[in-house]
Amino acid sequence: MKHLGDRVEDLKIAYIGGGSRGWAWGLMSDLSQSKQISGTVYLYDIDFQAALDNEIIGNKSGDNFNYKAVEQISDALPSADFVIISILPGTFDEMESDVHTPEKYGIYQSVGDSTGPGGLVRALRTIPMYVEIPEAIKEYCPNAWVINYTNPMALCVATLYKVFPKIKAFGCCHEVFGTQKILCQMLDEMGIIKNADRHELSTMPVGINHFTWLTSAYYKNIDLFPLYKDFVKKHKEEGITRADKNWLNSFFGTAEIVKFELFEQYSVIAAAGDRHLAEFCPGNWFLASPDVTHQWKFNLTPVSWRKEELRKRKEKSRKLVSGEIDFEQKATGEEGVNQICALLGLSDIVTNVNMPNVGQLSNIPLGTVVETNAVFSANSVTPVNSGAIPENVYSIMAPAVYNQNNIINGMFEKDKNLLFNAFISDRLTDRLSLSDAKELFNTMLKNTKKYLPEWIIK
Amino acid sequence: MKHLGDRVEDLKIAYIGGGSRGWAWGLMSDLSQSKQISGTVYLYDIDFQAALDNEIIGNKSGDNFNYKAVEQISDALPSADFVIISILPGTFDEMESDVHTPEKYGIYQSVGDSTGPGGLVRALRTIPMYVEIPEAIKEYCPNAWVINYTNPMALCVATLYKVFPKIKAFGCCHEVFGTQKILCQMLDEMGIIKNADRHELSTMPVGINHFTWLTSAYYKNIDLFPLYKDFVKKHKEEGITRADKNWLNSFFGTAEIVKFELFEQYSVIAAAGDRHLAEFCPGNWFLASPDVTHQWKFNLTPVSWRKEELRKRKEKSRKLVSGEIDFEQKATGEEGVNQICALLGLSDIVTNVNMPNVGQLSNIPLGTVVETNAVFSANSVTPVNSGAIPENVYSIMAPAVYNQNNIINGMFEKDKNLLFNAFISDRLTDRLSLSDAKELFNTMLKNTKKYLPEWIIK
Amino acid sequence: MKHLGDRVEDLKIAYIGGGSRGWAWGLMSDLSQSKQISGTVYLYDIDFQAALDNEIIGNKSGDNFNYKAVEQISDALPSADFVIISILPGTFDEMESDVHTPEKYGIYQSVGDSTGPGGLVRALRTIPMYVEIPEAIKEYCPNAWVINYTNPMALCVATLYKVFPKIKAFGCCHEVFGTQKILCQMLDEMGIIKNADRHELSTMPVGINHFTWLTSAYYKNIDLFPLYKDFVKKHKEEGITRADKNWLNSFFGTAEIVKFELFEQYSVIAAAGDRHLAEFCPGNWFLASPDVTHQWKFNLTPVSWRKEELRKRKEKSRKLVSGEIDFEQKATGEEGVNQICALLGLSDIVTNVNMPNVGQLSNIPLGTVVETNAVFSANSVTPVNSGAIPENVYSIMAPAVYNQNNIINGMFEKDKNLLFNAFISDRLTDRLSLSDAKELFNTMLKNTKKYLPEWIIK
Amino acid sequence: MKHLGDRVEDLKIAYIGGGSRGWAWGLMSDLSQSKQISGTVYLYDIDFQAALDNEIIGNKSGDNFNYKAVEQISDALPSADFVIISILPGTFDEMESDVHTPEKYGIYQSVGDSTGPGGLVRALRTIPMYVEIPEAIKEYCPNAWVINYTNPMALCVATLYKVFPKIKAFGCCHEVFGTQKILCQMLDEMGIIKNADRHELSTMPVGINHFTWLTSAYYKNIDLFPLYKDFVKKHKEEGITRADKNWLNSFFGTAEIVKFELFEQYSVIAAAGDRHLAEFCPGNWFLASPDVTHQWKFNLTPVSWRKEELRKRKEKSRKLVSGEIDFEQKATGEEGVNQICALLGLSDIVTNVNMPNVGQLSNIPLGTVVETNAVFSANSVTPVNSGAIPENVYSIMAPAVYNQNNIINGMFEKDKNLLFNAFISDRLTDRLSLSDAKELFNTMLKNTKKYLPEWIIK
Repeated sequence: MKHLGDRVEDLKIAYIGGGSRGWAWGLMSDLSQSKQISGTVYLYDIDFQAALDNEIIGNKSGDNFNYKAVEQISDALPSADFVIISILPGTFDEMESDVHTPEKYGIYQSVGDSTGPGGLVRALRTIPMYVEIPEAIKEYCPNAWVINYTNPMALCVATLYKVFPKIKAFGCCHEVFGTQKILCQMLDEMGIIKNADRHELSTMPVGINHFTWLTSAYYKNIDLFPLYKDFVKKHKEEGITRADKNWLNSFFGTAEIVKFELFEQYSVIAAAGDRHLAEFCPGNWFLASPDVTHQWKFNLTPVSWRKEELRKRKEKSRKLVSGEIDFEQKATGEEGVNQICALLGLSDIVTNVNMPNVGQLSNIPLGTVVETNAVFSANSVTPVNSGAIPENVYSIMAPAVYNQNNIINGMFEKDKNLLFNAFISDRLTDRLSLSDAKELFNTMLKNTKKYLPEWIIK
Repeated sequence: MKHLGDRVEDLKIAYIGGGSRGWAWGLMSDLSQSKQISGTVYLYDIDFQAALDNEIIGNKSGDNFNYKAVEQISDALPSADFVIISILPGTFDEMESDVHTPEKYGIYQSVGDSTGPGGLVRALRTIPMYVEIPEAIKEYCPNAWVINYTNPMALCVATLYKVFPKIKAFGCCHEVFGTQKILCQMLDEMGIIKNADRHELSTMPVGINHFTWLTSAYYKNIDLFPLYKDFVKKHKEEGITRADKNWLNSFFGTAEIVKFELFEQYSVIAAAGDRHLAEFCPGNWFLASPDVTHQWKFNLTPVSWRKEELRKRKEKSRKLVSGEIDFEQKATGEEGVNQICALLGLSDIVTNVNMPNVGQLSNIPLGTVVETNAVFSANSVTPVNSGAIPENVYSIMAPAVYNQNNIINGMFEKDKNLLFNAFISDRLTDRLSLSDAKELFNTMLKNTKKYLPEWIIK
Repeated sequence: MKHLGDRVEDLKIAYIGGGSRGWAWGLMSDLSQSKQISGTVYLYDIDFQAALDNEIIGNKSGDNFNYKAVEQISDALPSADFVIISILPGTFDEMESDVHTPEKYGIYQSVGDSTGPGGLVRALRTIPMYVEIPEAIKEYCPNAWVINYTNPMALCVATLYKVFPKIKAFGCCHEVFGTQKILCQMLDEMGIIKNADRHELSTMPVGINHFTWLTSAYYKNIDLFPLYKDFVKKHKEEGITRADKNWLNSFFGTAEIVKFELFEQYSVIAAAGDRHLAEFCPGNWFLASPDVTHQWKFNLTPVSWRKEELRKRKEKSRKLVSGEIDFEQKATGEEGVNQICALLGLSDIVTNVNMPNVGQLSNIPLGTVVETNAVFSANSVTPVNSGAIPENVYSIMAPAVYNQNNIINGMFEKDKNLLFNAFISDRLTDRLSLSDAKELFNTMLKNTKKYLPEWIIK
Repeated sequence: MKHLGDRVEDLKIAYIGGGSRGWAWGLMSDLSQSKQISGTVYLYDIDFQAALDNEIIGNKSGDNFNYKAVEQISDALPSADFVIISILPGTFDEMESDVHTPEKYGIYQSVGDSTGPGGLVRALRTIPMYVEIPEAIKEYCPNAWVINYTNPMALCVATLYKVFPKIKAFGCCHEVFGTQKILCQMLDEMGIIKNADRHELSTMPVGINHFTWLTSAYYKNIDLFPLYKDFVKKHKEEGITRADKNWLNSFFGTAEIVKFELFEQYSVIAAAGDRHLAEFCPGNWFLASPDVTHQWKFNLTPVSWRKEELRKRKEKSRKLVSGEIDFEQKATGEEGVNQICALLGLSDIVTNVNMPNVGQLSNIPLGTVVETNAVFSANSVTPVNSGAIPENVYSIMAPAVYNQNNIINGMFEKDKNLLFNAFISDRLTDRLSLSDAKELFNTMLKNTKKYLPEWIIK
C-alpha cells in the first residue's frame, strides 16, 4: 500500500466468497467509481470457477482495481490490507430446510437467516467456517481490517472475535439505510424537504443486527420524531409504497406497517426491513400464518424463489463473462468503499456498524455483537456511546441477545443442550411444546448435517 | 428496645396486614417460641375487625409478645424496630379475574400472583398501596427494618426502594427451602444421610423470586449435583411424593417433574415450587391446558378454592377468638424470627432474600430485585457475590427481569403503553396475537378497576 | 431560530461573563466569519460596564450578529439556543493567594487554576456561582446547549450536571490542539508532510482536562507514534521552539520537554501544555522550585503578570470602544463556532470535549467529567468509546479523578473535612506534613473568604 | 479425605515454606487443637533441613496430624486438599536493602513488605516464585484450596490467579483482628461490655491488604462508631496501650494514634496496624523521619532486629527438635483452621479475606485483589457485597490499587518501565525527583538481583 496525499495505491483486498454473484458485483461497481483508491482484489471461493468468472467480470468493471482468482485462502490473505467476507453457508437446499421445515409446526419465517429456527441452524453451519477464517487471518494478515457481510451477522462477527480477539473486524448492513430513506420520503411527502438525502440525517441506531431502532433522528436540526408520529398515524392502515419497492410485486417489498405498529407500541423507530423485524417479535404477532403476513402486507420469501433467482444470476454471470452484456457501474448505496477510505485516513465518516459491545450500549452485556454508530477514522472504528436499548424493547429483544452467547458457547464447548436452550427460548419457537421443539430441532439438524460437526448429529 | 446481653426486650414490631389469617398466625407461633426477644406487635389492617380478632389470638399465642390492634397505620409505625408487610391487594374477586380471564384466550396460570397476566395486573393493584407504605415508614420509623411477604414479591420490594431509596427492606420467601428439603429427601432415599436438615446444606440460590436456581449445593462437603443428576433420571417420569405434600390430593402439591425437566434442560437446580416455575416458562411448555398440567403432575389452583379456604380460616379465627380451639405453637419453618434476631446482633445467619441488585448477581441490571443469599448480621443484610445467572436460563428469564422496570416505570410515569409492553413480552402471553393481547389486557384492567388509579382505565 | 437549508438565522446566544476581554473577543471574531449562522448575542457580566463596552466592540466586529449587554442573567437566558460561560471566579487578588501562598511551603504552581491547592481553592469560589447558573438555565432555557470555558473545567462542568442533570452542557479546551500542532510541526521537520493541518490528524485523546493523553495518533494512515519516539529522543534535552511560542520570552511558552519526558516514561503522548501537565504530577518532578522549572524550560506565571496583562487589555478595550483601533477579524483556532454549527445540524464534527463519563472511558467512574472525542451532530454530543486510561498513567492521575467527587460532595454536603481530604491527597500537596497542610489550607481559605460560603470559614 | 459426619479424616495438607519457624509452628498449634480434622501435613521448603526439623517438631505438636518433610514440591502437592503458602522471598539481606536503602533518600518504612519501595522490590523477587507454585498446583492438585500468608499479600494472590485463573485461592491476614480487639478494649474501658470477644462484633472491612477500613462496626446491635468517636477524641494525644503490646518496648508495638488521626480525617476506622497504615499514606505524614515516627508513637523495625530474631528462632527450633523444650499448644487467634473446617462443610464462618474483586467492592477494578468479608462454606469462599471504598480514602489509596496491575503486568510483559511507573507513583516515593527515583530504583534492584529475572537488571 502506498499513500500519496489524498490517494492510496497498491491496496490489497482479499475477498472471501469472491465468487458471489451479488455482493461481489456491487463491490466491483463501487470500487470502480472510487477516485481515491486502487490496487488488487484477490477472489477466493470454494467454487473456484465462480471466482475465475468474477476475475473476468471484475477486470471488465473498471480500471483502478485488478482482480485475481486464487485457489487457496492462503493465496488471498498474505499482506492483505482489507479482507471482505461474504459467503453462503451451505446451499439453498439447506436454507430450504431452515425456512420451510418449521412451517410444519406453524412457525413461519419471512427470511430465516438471522434469528428464529432458521437463523440458529444457519449459524451452526456458519460458525465452523468462521473458525477457520480468523485463524488464517491471524496467520497471514493479522493487521488487516476485516469486513463481514455474511448472515447471521452478529454470530459471524462474534465468532471472528472469539477465535482471534485482536482481529480488527466489523460487520456492515444496509437495513438501517432503508429506514433512513423512509424518513427522507416522509419529509418529501410532507412538503418539508424535497429530495433529502439520507446522509443529511443524524440518527442514533441501537440494537442488534436486523432488530435495530432509532432513538433519535434529525434532518439538520429538525426533530423527526413528532413528524414520524403523524406519518405513522396517517399510514398505519394502508402502509406506504417505497419508491424502490412494492410489496405486492416482490418477495422483498413491504408496506412498512410492521415498522409503524412497532412505533406505536414502543415509541422508537424500528430501523430494519419489516421482514427482519417480524422475526424478532413473538411469532403470533406478524408471522402466525401466510394470511397474517398478508394482513401486515409482506410476503414470506420461499427458498424456491431464491433458487430461481440464483439461476438467473448464473446466467447473467455467463453473459458478463462472454461479453454478451456489459458490466454496469452504478452506486450501490453501500458504505463499504467509504469505510475503506476512512480507515485509510482519507476522510472520517460516522455510520452504523456491528461490533462487540465495549460500552456503546450501556445495558447490553459487554462482548455481545451490537449495531450502533461508529466513527471510522485512520486505522480505527470507534463506536459512539449510544445510550441504552429502551427497556420496553429490551424485554422483547433479550432472548436474541443472550442466545448469541448460548449458540457460540454451545458450538465451542460442543454442548448440544445449550444450542437447544437457545432454540426454545427464541421468540419464534417459544410457543412450541417441549416435545415438538425437540422433534423440530433434530429434524432441522439432520437436514443440514452435511455442514455440521459430527458431534452435533449423533 | 433494650439490649440485655443475649436478649432484647421491648422490641416494637408493626404488622401491616395484621388481620391476616395465615402469615400472621405463623409469625405469632414463631415469636412465641423465641427465647431471645420480647415486646409488642402492633396489628394494622384495612379490615380493623380482623386485626382486633388477631389481637385476641396473638395475646393467647404466648407470653413474650403483647399484641395490639390499631386503626391507623400512623398508630402502628412510630418508633417501630421492625415492620412486617403481608397484605392481599384487592380481594379474591379481583384475583379470580387475574387467574381465570386469560383462560378464555388459552392462557392458563397455576398461581397467577407473581408473573404472567395475573401477576402483572395484581402488581398494578399493589403498587399504589406500596407507594403509601414506604412514605409512612419514611415519616414514622425510617430506621426500621422492613420485611415483605406480599406478592408479587419483586415488584413490592422494588416499589419500596423506588419510593424511599434508603429504606432497609428485604423480601422473604420459603420457596427455596422446599427444594432444599427435596435434596434432603434425596440423601435419605439414597441412604447417604438419614434425616438431614436443610440448614445443614450449603446452597447458592440465584434468580428472581419464584424463578430461582441453585448453581451449587453441598451437604457438608458432599457435592449434591452428581447425586441429583441420578435422582432426576430415576424419578423424572413418575415424580416424587414429598413427605408433606401430594399433588393428587392438593392444589398445592406437585410431583416435582417440572423441576426435574428443567434440570435436564439447564443443568442447574430449579429452586421453587413447580407451580411457580411453570409460569416463568413459555406457556406451551407446562401450562398449555389443564390436561397438559396433569401430564406434568400439578394442578391449576382455582380461585374458588381460595375463597372456600378463606371461609374456613375465618371460621377458625372465630373459634380461636372464642376459645373453642386453642392456639397451637409450632415452628413454621420460616426464617423471619431468625432474621430479626440476626439483625439485632444476636447471631449471624446466611439465608436467601429478595433485595435490589447491588452486584450480588453480576449479569442482572443493578437495582433489579433479585433473590440470593445474604449475611444477616447486626443491623445489616449484606448480599453475597453469587456470580451470574447461567446464560441459558437467562434467555428464558430475561423478559421477567426487564419487565420489573417496565411495570414500575409504567405506574410511576402513568404510561399505559409501557404496561402493555410488559404484558405482551411476558412468556405466558407472548403467544397471543397483538389484537387478542390488547383485548385481554383491557378486560383484565376493567375487572380490577376498583383498585387501580383512574388514568389506567380511561 | 430559523432554519434555512444550510443557514440558521435568528440564533440566540447568551454569554455569561460577556464582559470578558479575551474569550469574548475571540468568539466575536469567529462568529463574524461564519457564513452559516446569524442572530443576537446577549452579554451578561457582573461588571455591567464591561458588558456594555463589549456590546459596542461586538457590534463593530461584523454584520451577522447583533450584541446586546443585559443587566440581569434573566435578561440573557430566556429562549437562548446556546449559553456560553466564561467567567473569572473572584479577582486576581484571590488568584494571587491561590498561586503564591503555597510557595511559602515549597509548593510551586505554574498555572494554579485546575488542580493543586490553587485549583482546589479556585473551585471552592467557582462552585457557588456554578450552582446559580444551571438553576437559571433550568428555569429560562432548559433546552439550550451550554458551552463552558471556565476553569477548573472539570469541576465547573460537574457542577452544572450535579445541579441540573438534564442540562445539555460540555466544556471546551484547546490544550489538545497544541499537541496536535506539535505533531504537525514534527511531520514538517522530518520532511514527511509540509504544512500539515491538525484537522488532518486522527487522534484519540483520553484523560481529564489539562491532563489528557493521546493513545493513538495518525496523519492519514501514517502512524505517528514511531515518529514521535524518534522526535522525542532527538529533542528531549533541548526541547523545541513552537512556531507560535518561545518559553524564554513568555510566561506561557515552554520547550515541551515535560511532554517528552512523560512520553519516555509512559509511552503515550501527553496532550496539554507542559505548564498544565506538570501540576498533575508529583510536585518534585517538575515544580520543586523555580530553578527546577527552568531546567524543564518553562516559567511559573506570576499573578502580577496577569494583573499587568489585564491592565493592557482594559486599555485595548477602551481603544476598541472609542474607535482608536479597529476590531481585527482573525480565526482563533477554537472549535466553538464549528461546534455550534454541528449542533444545528449543519455538518458533523468529531472533536475533544469535557463531559461526564457515560462509558467513553472504561476505567474511570461513571459521572466523572473526562475529556475525550465526541461526535457533534444535530442536537447531540455523543462521546466515542475511547478505551481506558493507560494504567500506568492512571496511578498518577487517580487522586485528581477521585477528588472531583470529594470536592463537589464537600461543597454540596458542607463537609469541610472532605475538602481537606482532597487537598492533602493531591499530587502537589501530598508531600506536606499534616500540620503544614492544615495551616496552608486554612490560610488559603481565609485569603479568598469573600467568595466562599460562610460555613467553610468558621 | 474421608468425611465422617462432623469429622474429616485423612486430610492432606501441603505446606510450602514448611521450614518456617513462625507461621508453621502456629499452624501446628492450631491444628493440634482441632477436634474435627486429622490427616497429614507435607512440609516443603527450599531449606530442606528446616523442613526436616519441623517434621520432628510437628510430630511432637499433637496426635491428629502427621508431619512429613519432602524434598520436592512435586512430593508435597499430589492430591492435596489444602495448600498453605508462607515463604520468605529472598533473605533478610535483600530485605535490608528493601527497608534501609531508601532511607538514604529520606524515605523511611516501618515494615517495608507490602507497599512503598520495599514492598515493590520484594514483589519483584516474589512473583517469579509465585509463577511456579500455581503451575505446580494446576498440575498436581487443581481442586485444592490454597491459603496464602506471604507478603506482599495482594500481589501474591494476584499472581496465583494470573497464572492459574481457576485456582481456588485466598489470602489470610490478621491485621483486621487487631482493630477489632481495640474495639473490644474500648467497650471494656467504657464500662459497656466487659471481656467482649472480637468474634461477637459485626464489622464491614473494605480495602486492600494492610490498608483496610471498617465502614461499620457493631457489638450485638450497639453501633460502635459514636463510641469510637469519643474514644479517639479522648486518646488521640497519648494513644492507648494494648493489652498485648507496648510501643515503647517493642518494634511492633504502637500507640494506635495513626489510626486515631486517620479516623478524624476520614470518619471510617482504619483497620490495620499503625506501622502498615503509615506506609500507604503520603510519606511526610507519619514517616518523614525517625523523629516523626516517635511523635506518632511507633518504631521503624530495623532489619538487623529481624536477623537477631531469626537467630533466636533457630535456637528455639534446635531446642524443640532436641527436646530441650516442649512444644506448647496455644491458640494463635488466626482463622486458618476454622476456614479449613468451613471449606469442608463442617460449619460456616464469615471472616475477612484477600481475593480478586468480583464485585465485593463496587468502586475497585474487577480482578484487583481486595480485602473484605466472605462467607466460608462447603467448598466455597463467597465475598459479600461490601459497598464502596469511601471516596475520600480512595483518593489516597488509588495508586496502590492501580499499581497491582502495573507491577504484575511489568513482570509478565518484562516491561521495566511499567515497574518504574509504579515505583514513582507510590505515596512513599512520589516526593523524590525523577532522577533520584531512577537512581534509588536501580540501586535497589541491583541489591536484590540474585532473586530477580535477568532482563530486569541489565
